[in-house]
Amino acid sequence: MVVRDGEVVGRGYHRKAGTPHAEVHALTDAGERSRGATIYVTLEPCNHTGRTPPCSRAILEAGIRRVVIGMLDPHGLAGGGAAFLASRGLEVTTGILEKRCREINYPFIKHVTTGLPWVVMKAAMSLDGRISYLPGGGGRITGPEAGHSVHRLRDRFDAILIGAATARIDNPSLTTRLEGAKGRDPLRVILDSNLSLSPEAHLFNLDSPAQTWIFCRAEAPAEKEQRLAEAGAVVHRVASDGEGRLVPEEVLKVLGRSDITSVLVEGGSRIHGSFLGHSLVDQVYLFMAPFFIGDQGTPLLQGYSFPATGEPLRLRDMTVERVGEDVLIQGLLTTV
Amino acid sequence: MVVRDGEVVGRGYHRKAGTPHAEVHALTDAGERSRGATIYVTLEPCNHTGRTPPCSRAILEAGIRRVVIGMLDPHGLAGGGAAFLASRGLEVTTGILEKRCREINYPFIKHVTTGLPWVVMKAAMSLDGRISYLPGGGGRITGPEAGHSVHRLRDRFDAILIGAATARIDNPSLTTRLEGAKGRDPLRVILDSNLSLSPEAHLFNLDSPAQTWIFCRAEAPAEKEQRLAEAGAVVHRVASDGEGRLVPEEVLKVLGRSDITSVLVEGGSRIHGSFLGHSLVDQVYLFMAPFFIGDQGTPLLQGYSFPATGEPLRLRDMTVERVGEDVLIQGLLTTV
Repeated sequence: MVVRDGEVVGRGYHRKAGTPHAEVHALTDAGERSRGATIYVTLEPCNHTGRTPPCSRAILEAGIRRVVIGMLDPHGLAGGGAAFLASRGLEVTTGILEKRCREINYPFIKHVTTGLPWVVMKAAMSLDGRISYLPGGGGRITGPEAGHSVHRLRDRFDAILIGAATARIDNPSLTTRLEGAKGRDPLRVILDSNLSLSPEAHLFNLDSPAQTWIFCRAEAPAEKEQRLAEAGAVVHRVASDGEGRLVPEEVLKVLGRSDITSVLVEGGSRIHGSFLGHSLVDQVYLFMAPFFIGDQGTPLLQGYSFPATGEPLRLRDMTVERVGEDVLIQGLLTTV
Repeated sequence: MVVRDGEVVGRGYHRKAGTPHAEVHALTDAGERSRGATIYVTLEPCNHTGRTPPCSRAILEAGIRRVVIGMLDPHGLAGGGAAFLASRGLEVTTGILEKRCREINYPFIKHVTTGLPWVVMKAAMSLDGRISYLPGGGGRITGPEAGHSVHRLRDRFDAILIGAATARIDNPSLTTRLEGAKGRDPLRVILDSNLSLSPEAHLFNLDSPAQTWIFCRAEAPAEKEQRLAEAGAVVHRVASDGEGRLVPEEVLKVLGRSDITSVLVEGGSRIHGSFLGHSLVDQVYLFMAPFFIGDQGTPLLQGYSFPATGEPLRLRDMTVERVGEDVLIQGLLTTV
């Protein structure tokens, strides 16, 4: 954000890995009004030429007088923008709202440092931790406000990921539907080890600019791949374990290499169990409806067991809030 | 509470069904200072002679000038105290903090109107609704602050109820342990249909003035009853269903007849499932620890299924708060 004489004269955000950074968009938006202005950034401006030119130089050339930075860049290579700008006589302030800026930058930081996307587990469940009313059944559990929250959440992610069982049961479109605002459809990712999905599913019959990617195991039938490809899907074959289940880290590697910096994992229970069991969940969003479902409902986690040795992994920075009639519990599982 | 010239001159609370009401204690505490004073009561003073004389008359005779009442008495027979006092020239104000007073009076109201105690389901569980780490295993799930909350909770109840499986696994003493305050041990109630408990259990080896009652089915072995009675327990035989499980309403009837107006049901999962399934839970206290346990843990509810027809029963007046590292969700299931 570029501010001059107490007025916002330019805004910008980083739209996608590999494209111009937020600073460039904000400076372009401000144009000549950047001269003598202050620029506010969540992350230290980069100081190297990667796939885009260094932002530090763009800030200098635009005539900015002061730079306010939320957090320094943890990426050794691109860092140094703050020092460079200070050396050229700009006033540089760092560490403003650092915790909040860190949160905003989680996906970027993780992707830059590990090559993997930031993984958020999202589920809607009853008070007793059930995500369906009946075995293999669907049906909405949380209320409309929680539904709106999920659509706002999707809008912030590069990809949404679900398992084939959930795709079959819910037959979702996995698009972002926001009232009065234009949503950005994330990449749709389905884990379907044996390519069991029907090409008739809603996923393949959408008016959406986003693609649908299906991950299957190396041995999945070629004729099914053909039919799904004809329906418009991109099929990726990845390694599976002894029981034919996809190795979730292999899926994340493919996504990370394609500049997907954040994935919203929406279930079902085996997918959640698999990602948690492989310690691949970075953040958790649990929407809880205020009632009990009991024995018949599918549990939140299947195929996951608390490690027999050691402490359970606790959510850090947990927040609890009401969302309509429901409760939203959020927290972090990894250290960024 | 009796107040004169802006100063509290007398306090009292109703200690147990069948004993003098709060008004009598407060007036006795205030003594002569009641003349011309104001009395604040959560519930309309009774106007009839039950097991104790009418409080309305005691208030009149003490020389009280003004009566402030939280809620009117829902019990037709005992009601009328407000009208009686107003007719004798006292200033009477009703409906002050009525919702809060209603909450305080839930056990009394339910016991008076149904003969059954007020039933609160309390559990400590993980984010995915598991109340143990391993099948049949124990181990603390929530943190020390939640533990203190449970002891403060126990202090407010006439009885605590658990199942025999929980008694075996946790071997609890079920006493109220409060730091720096004298706790009141509630009656300890164990549902043990076949009298499987050992007389060696902590429950029977306590320095506590409270009794331990064991409920079993009619067919439970007499020699076991003998041994448990020798250990100090009171054994009640009640009706069981076709599978030998105690009918929870029969247990509550016995407790209600013994002037137990409130029961804290502490589990385990079959007990919670049984009380919920019989629509006998009035209020819920769920303490949630900020981690996942997964498949191996015992689910919160066993033997309970969401009714196939109709809406699930939602918690009303739900509140959500942090208790140390944990989250406490509270709410009502019945309408008072």
